[in-house]
Amino acid sequence: MPETLGFIGLGNMGEPIAANLMAAGHALRIYNRTASKGASLVAKGATLAKNPADVAAPGGIVFTMIADDRAIDELCLPPGSFVEKLSPGGIHVSLSTISPATARRLAGHHAKHKVEYVASPVFGRPEAAAAKKLWVCASGSAAAKARVRPLLEAVGQGIFDFGEEVGAANVVKLCGNFLVASTVEALAEMMVLAEKNGLSKKALAEMIGNFSPMHAGYANLIADEKFEPAGFRLVLGLKDINLILETARDSTTPLPLASLLHDHWISAVAKGRGDLDWSAVALGLAEDAGLKPKVKTAR
Amino acid sequence: MPETLGFIGLGNMGEPIAANLMAAGHALRIYNRTASKGASLVAKGATLAKNPADVAAPGGIVFTMIADDRAIDELCLPPGSFVEKLSPGGIHVSLSTISPATARRLAGHHAKHKVEYVASPVFGRPEAAAAKKLWVCASGSAAAKARVRPLLEAVGQGIFDFGEEVGAANVVKLCGNFLVASTVEALAEMMVLAEKNGLSKKALAEMIGNFSPMHAGYANLIADEKFEPAGFRLVLGLKDINLILETARDSTTPLPLASLLHDHWISAVAKGRGDLDWSAVALGLAEDAGLKPKVKTAR
Amino acid sequence: MPETLGFIGLGNMGEPIAANLMAAGHALRIYNRTASKGASLVAKGATLAKNPADVAAPGGIVFTMIADDRAIDELCLPPGSFVEKLSPGGIHVSLSTISPATARRLAGHHAKHKVEYVASPVFGRPEAAAAKKLWVCASGSAAAKARVRPLLEAVGQGIFDFGEEVGAANVVKLCGNFLVASTVEALAEMMVLAEKNGLSKKALAEMIGNFSPMHAGYANLIADEKFEPAGFRLVLGLKDINLILETARDSTTPLPLASLLHDHWISAVAKGRGDLDWSAVALGLAEDAGLKPKVKTAR
Amino acid sequence: MPETLGFIGLGNMGEPIAANLMAAGHALRIYNRTASKGASLVAKGATLAKNPADVAAPGGIVFTMIADDRAIDELCLPPGSFVEKLSPGGIHVSLSTISPATARRLAGHHAKHKVEYVASPVFGRPEAAAAKKLWVCASGSAAAKARVRPLLEAVGQGIFDFGEEVGAANVVKLCGNFLVASTVEALAEMMVLAEKNGLSKKALAEMIGNFSPMHAGYANLIADEKFEPAGFRLVLGLKDINLILETARDSTTPLPLASLLHDHWISAVAKGRGDLDWSAVALGLAEDAGLKPKVKTAR
Repeated sequence: MPETLGFIGLGNMGEPIAANLMAAGHALRIYNRTASKGASLVAKGATLAKNPADVAAPGGIVFTMIADDRAIDELCLPPGSFVEKLSPGGIHVSLSTISPATARRLAGHHAKHKVEYVASPVFGRPEAAAAKKLWVCASGSAAAKARVRPLLEAVGQGIFDFGEEVGAANVVKLCGNFLVASTVEALAEMMVLAEKNGLSKKALAEMIGNFSPMHAGYANLIADEKFEPAGFRLVLGLKDINLILETARDSTTPLPLASLLHDHWISAVAKGRGDLDWSAVALGLAEDAGLKPKVKTAR
Repeated sequence: MPETLGFIGLGNMGEPIAANLMAAGHALRIYNRTASKGASLVAKGATLAKNPADVAAPGGIVFTMIADDRAIDELCLPPGSFVEKLSPGGIHVSLSTISPATARRLAGHHAKHKVEYVASPVFGRPEAAAAKKLWVCASGSAAAKARVRPLLEAVGQGIFDFGEEVGAANVVKLCGNFLVASTVEALAEMMVLAEKNGLSKKALAEMIGNFSPMHAGYANLIADEKFEPAGFRLVLGLKDINLILETARDSTTPLPLASLLHDHWISAVAKGRGDLDWSAVALGLAEDAGLKPKVKTAR
Repeated sequence: MPETLGFIGLGNMGEPIAANLMAAGHALRIYNRTASKGASLVAKGATLAKNPADVAAPGGIVFTMIADDRAIDELCLPPGSFVEKLSPGGIHVSLSTISPATARRLAGHHAKHKVEYVASPVFGRPEAAAAKKLWVCASGSAAAKARVRPLLEAVGQGIFDFGEEVGAANVVKLCGNFLVASTVEALAEMMVLAEKNGLSKKALAEMIGNFSPMHAGYANLIADEKFEPAGFRLVLGLKDINLILETARDSTTPLPLASLLHDHWISAVAKGRGDLDWSAVALGLAEDAGLKPKVKTAR
Repeated sequence: MPETLGFIGLGNMGEPIAANLMAAGHALRIYNRTASKGASLVAKGATLAKNPADVAAPGGIVFTMIADDRAIDELCLPPGSFVEKLSPGGIHVSLSTISPATARRLAGHHAKHKVEYVASPVFGRPEAAAAKKLWVCASGSAAAKARVRPLLEAVGQGIFDFGEEVGAANVVKLCGNFLVASTVEALAEMMVLAEKNGLSKKALAEMIGNFSPMHAGYANLIADEKFEPAGFRLVLGLKDINLILETARDSTTPLPLASLLHDHWISAVAKGRGDLDWSAVALGLAEDAGLKPKVKTAR
């Protein structure tokens, strides 16, 4: 049954997700720090709220797609937040890539107000969000997940349920990003070895792409040294790697490969490459092998 | 035009490849250290040679699928070898995963006898070889590659040509194995993080498999702790990682991720796991995180 | 001129340092969460305060030797803390090993109350503290350092001044601990190589000790597998390594060796060795090489 | 009782060692590929041999101080070598830093000629050799070591006996160099952290030097960016790190820190720094942190 939903955070990902909720027949109250970003949704009938708490209704549902752990804390924890407005019976569906520790902490905070927290980080880029092709992870209480399930189905092509422990979906999201970052690192080192041995990087990328679609895109970006425009900014990749290492630390888990990724990503940021695509980590690896790639930093 | 070919090395990979050459209409003279391995080919009409040199005919073509660099040296370099028998105009098609340095050295040796060396390492498992689904890399002189091309097409689903520098195809093969080993490492670390955070490894493997077929198989092996029978023995994986590092060293290339793989694979061998599937590297990572996986060593 | 000083934190290090301040002629008001720890100082004439703020006098000096960043925050930041009591003209001499970021933040907090913050972390073990053999680092305003210099001289054998940027001395202290942890790691790996090659670890330790006193102690502990009683608990070592990595992250500095230390120390904690001496990191390295050391965890 | 000794290899280390043997009363037959290097010894009465075998006498003793494993193989293995000339009862004292595997192989070769092989790698720089301040390791048969002991005492300040397994002394030498390389790495990373936090590297080096003489020299070289003239050339350091990793591989030992050193040293060579002092590995670490050190490559 269509209901009025709240949605906070209308960036590259949030806006198309919100649009798909509207396309599924739901009315939306929306909020974004920069109000202008909501214009296209308002044109479709969404109500623009003056402050985040106004998107919530008692017993209702509010989605958030927020940049990072600190921002979501600032949104949820102060007195009078949308969480309090949600009141007993309300649900907060958190789509952001944040640490499981933050998710658990927020769930504890929400529980004091008898509000449910559902962690629902998503896999996919903005184009996938627009095309309803996201893969959605979910963790939280069975009842809350059951209620929001039709909504999650309206924004993605599949839902993976990771149980009731609220941080689980965030761990999964970090695991996924860890796999992709590892793939970028492996491709980047491989390409350096190829170049130092006189191989055509492009021919190698074509062969790799033949085997694994997941590898194809990055193999070509690295072979072409095409790091702008950034599909995923390197500095955001570093943020996620840091979340992975924090989660590892919290659970007393050594992750040597994640440590290696951290060292290489932080070097790329130190060299002024934070705004390039994260495959630009390849530049530092080439330099460490004595090569002199043309691209140096973001323009 | 069908011709009589020589084929040395009839292991898991060599036997089905040789069978496909026969299926394409070629007569075969075959040799294997353990002669009994050639029985099925003999049953199809192949001639079993008493020693490796006997598979060669002047100006002909000999394929080899041999375990490692040392074995191929011992096969090719001594006086009276099949290489000398090939005589000017002959071609040696080397399918093995060996170092580019060995390939270059052998090509130099062969040149003294006016025999061409074509490096043709292949991607794919024994099942793929049997199904003619291998991906074949090739490097060597254009003329030699042109002559053997129909033969390579008879054993695989596609050929990737990496030019005339004879070691190139071997570098490519090592690059490919480096990517797969890196994938195994990343999945293994990811699974430890998941387990330490209370997630279902099986649910995670299912999600991963949804995204990338290349990751699916290993994710499930690791989630299930199913390391026997070995699809690819860990000790052979270590051999390849060592070849990668040697090739990196020869070309003054730092490969930190390859070093990390080396450390973890050698630890697995030290713990008695060399005969398990190479995804069993996951066991050591789990132990390093204080977990106590059930599998310890090969039975 | 002797004056009455405040001293908070009377653990293994704090107690002997406070005793040396008294020996130099200063009266002390002391505080410790567990009051009984102050008994020996009270016997020498120190005044035991009921709460930490009571050790401070307007315009006076208070020393703290506190476990970690969080504890010192809780001590300094709440309204009515000893910092407020110090009042304009007062100085807080902070001896703890904490992050430079925390030091800088505290200095900013103190400045609002016109209280100076002097960072003075020390090198040396409890025995060195008792023997007045500490090496003292110092950073903070020149005026404040000049006023406390005679006091620092009363507790150590030498003072190293790292300028006015208040976090500098903490960076130095972390650098020093990084060097020692690196030494432990190198010795531990070396000993595994020796053992796997059939050498006498003890003979090797004796030779090493001949070259470098800094290495001698740890080389013998590792050769003897004598990890109890802990000279420095492994879990505290991990705390410091984490501070190093946080400081590196804050300054966009890749430190691959620190990352490696982190992975090995966290593994040791995961295996239940947090209360052993930090040289017990050697156990995990031995296990990774397939050895089975006798010591497993703290008793 | 003074006897006539053979000595092959009169480089920076060999020449002063040979001089000390003469100073102890022994006559010397010497050989060096570049004969002119023996001039000062000839001036003192040494006999210059035309080829290496001529330095040996049946049942005598020959010292070698040779660049690397390959060179010593080429010296010892061919028919008619000095080893054969030594004849039953002769002893070869090998001072070089080579792999234990090579030492063991040579000992096996020598045994066929009933010649003893004593491994005696030394610690110390050319100045120490001149001053008779070397530390000498020894492994080999007890009888052979007893016979050469007075000779070893004539060239060093102390002898460490590592038993009868002939490769042991070489393992020890590699362990020692591993410790020093690790110290260089730790100091280099520490200095980057210090610089990125605005500290005086020089002040830090002075403090470190106060604690540990072993660290002082390198800390100052790195703080001063003074990498020429090279005390120990970086490319020789890489050779030793490679020997360490080979020895680790042969004994199935993971050495993650040695792998890390390898990656950083090979990067330095790739960047053209092989002829600088090995502390120049610090340059790459600084660059990886976005710093731009002045020194780039050897002049």
